[in-house]
Amino acid sequence: MHELESLTNHQVRLAARPVGLPTRDNWQFVAEPVADPGAGGVVVRVLMLSLDPAMRGWMNEGKSYIAPVAIGEVMRAGGVGEVVASDTPAFAVGDHVTGSLGVQEYCALDAQGLRRAGLAKIDLKLAPLPKWLNPLGMPGMTGYFGLLDVGQPRQGETVVVSGAAGAVGQMVGQVAKIKGCRVVGIAGGKDKCEYVVDELGFDACIDYKGGSVRDGLKQYCPKGVDVYFDNVGGEILDTVLARINRGARIVICGAISQYNATAPVQGPKNYLSLLVNRARMEGIVVFDWVDRFPEAIREIAAWMRDGKLRSREDVVDGGVERFPEALNMLFSGKNFGKLVLRVAQTG
Amino acid sequence: MHELESLTNHQVRLAARPVGLPTRDNWQFVAEPVADPGAGGVVVRVLMLSLDPAMRGWMNEGKSYIAPVAIGEVMRAGGVGEVVASDTPAFAVGDHVTGSLGVQEYCALDAQGLRRAGLAKIDLKLAPLPKWLNPLGMPGMTGYFGLLDVGQPRQGETVVVSGAAGAVGQMVGQVAKIKGCRVVGIAGGKDKCEYVVDELGFDACIDYKGGSVRDGLKQYCPKGVDVYFDNVGGEILDTVLARINRGARIVICGAISQYNATAPVQGPKNYLSLLVNRARMEGIVVFDWVDRFPEAIREIAAWMRDGKLRSREDVVDGGVERFPEALNMLFSGKNFGKLVLRVAQTG
Repeated sequence: MHELESLTNHQVRLAARPVGLPTRDNWQFVAEPVADPGAGGVVVRVLMLSLDPAMRGWMNEGKSYIAPVAIGEVMRAGGVGEVVASDTPAFAVGDHVTGSLGVQEYCALDAQGLRRAGLAKIDLKLAPLPKWLNPLGMPGMTGYFGLLDVGQPRQGETVVVSGAAGAVGQMVGQVAKIKGCRVVGIAGGKDKCEYVVDELGFDACIDYKGGSVRDGLKQYCPKGVDVYFDNVGGEILDTVLARINRGARIVICGAISQYNATAPVQGPKNYLSLLVNRARMEGIVVFDWVDRFPEAIREIAAWMRDGKLRSREDVVDGGVERFPEALNMLFSGKNFGKLVLRVAQTG
Repeated sequence: MHELESLTNHQVRLAARPVGLPTRDNWQFVAEPVADPGAGGVVVRVLMLSLDPAMRGWMNEGKSYIAPVAIGEVMRAGGVGEVVASDTPAFAVGDHVTGSLGVQEYCALDAQGLRRAGLAKIDLKLAPLPKWLNPLGMPGMTGYFGLLDVGQPRQGETVVVSGAAGAVGQMVGQVAKIKGCRVVGIAGGKDKCEYVVDELGFDACIDYKGGSVRDGLKQYCPKGVDVYFDNVGGEILDTVLARINRGARIVICGAISQYNATAPVQGPKNYLSLLVNRARMEGIVVFDWVDRFPEAIREIAAWMRDGKLRSREDVVDGGVERFPEALNMLFSGKNFGKLVLRVAQTG
């Protein structure tokens, strides 16, 4: 793999743990030769990276479902790329792959690193590159399994999803529609609300920036809420808790309203609604379904092919240098659909 | 049933909705002739009444799992009594019964009222009267089904229960021991803690009044917490949330720390531990298992007979006049074991 050593690998490393919203000072920009992956390894040229709210959590110290990114370490990121060198029969040069590639231009993985990164081949005949970071990637898997396995929606029930125009929210709402539910989104801004109703077929969408979520739920969920898929936490979670039905299921997928909070997390004051309504609230982490990703990918790809499921990716150009700015777009609510950073031109 | 009309029925009615801890002003003391239950009805002489934290919730306005007690209505209470008049073959004079009898000396029920009160015969050969308000009554049913159906403890797991010396807590801890779990209680005061460990066989008990719950959990739950049965809410719920294991189950049975609060309920700030640990928090209401009470009564009575399960009742004398004072003992933590008000002398 000697020829790769002449290439420069631009990387973004974590320089310091942020307090509140990350700033440029939290990042370190490094240029170094592409590392030698060693025997049995591969080198992947990174083409696109996924930008996810969960990244903010990985920057914090403390126990979580995954170890924090260490200071000085390349920032963790899922991505898609092309194998440019391989010393294993599992991957050939030219294969397209997805996995935890990091915010860098080239990802060198030894045999153990291949497993840790969850490197897997992807089939571009099934769907183009950005789709593998959205409906066929982590957000898609999160929405699909979180809704179906934990939310357990039944035909005719009312499903509410916050962050409705986000990558996970789009999947949740569309799968719930396919399953015969009434679907009400919550999103910030008229454009996002119109998109999920007009383009994705949600029954309604409440603009939390333009009006009262409480009034919206009253209006659009006249039979109450059976499943709430929560991506935001905070006040909105409390407001929905006040309107759940008996036996409701609340899927806790994230709490984007709290990720940059420097004050303690705001706990749901209305949690005793769980008692009154014999309801449950359950947390999910997508990695728990990794063995079942192939079955989900097959089903979602079929829905896409049949026109039953759409997705929208918001691809930011500019390479790894633009990562800090692109990440913060997630927290300002500026992005629309799945946020993807293009690291290299393809084709 | 004419002869009963010469008897006086002393009652306690709700006079005004309390703010915070109920006071004597919230109650109205009434003496009236025993009502005629009408065709197909019964009159029950009330012998003992159950005093329960849930009563505080019934005094509030607003949607809950059960309608609030109306102003001017006899205060709702579960109890045991003796049938003194009957116009239905379902009950004979002299039968002992349990049901929602109210805070009064005589409970007159028509055919519809019989069903609403859930009137059921009890067998004093199986256990004496107060046991039917504790291990064989609502607290027993709550602990039994809440733990087994929702907590789903597995052998070798660690079960933590707050309000450990209370009626529900005693049942939860002892059933968890029978199922082969490590059981750690949380209770207020050295006496209560010693009781559940020395008399009921809990592995340990943390005195929240005498020390740090956080330190106690570290010490007594070295493998973390798999099931938490919560009767108290507030800070203790948050502290336990910080120590749950992956896949933990949290049973929300009550929140006695919050029932008299005039400020908004304190939501669990650590609820995102549910996400990190893929855990779930679920509310329970005992009435949902009413069809399965007979099977639970049989199993619990057998455990009692075999010396595997004990219970302690704290019987307060003094009749219905003493109800307001006895109720408030629940909220001061003064009672020890199941609090019961004796309304009439038996036998």
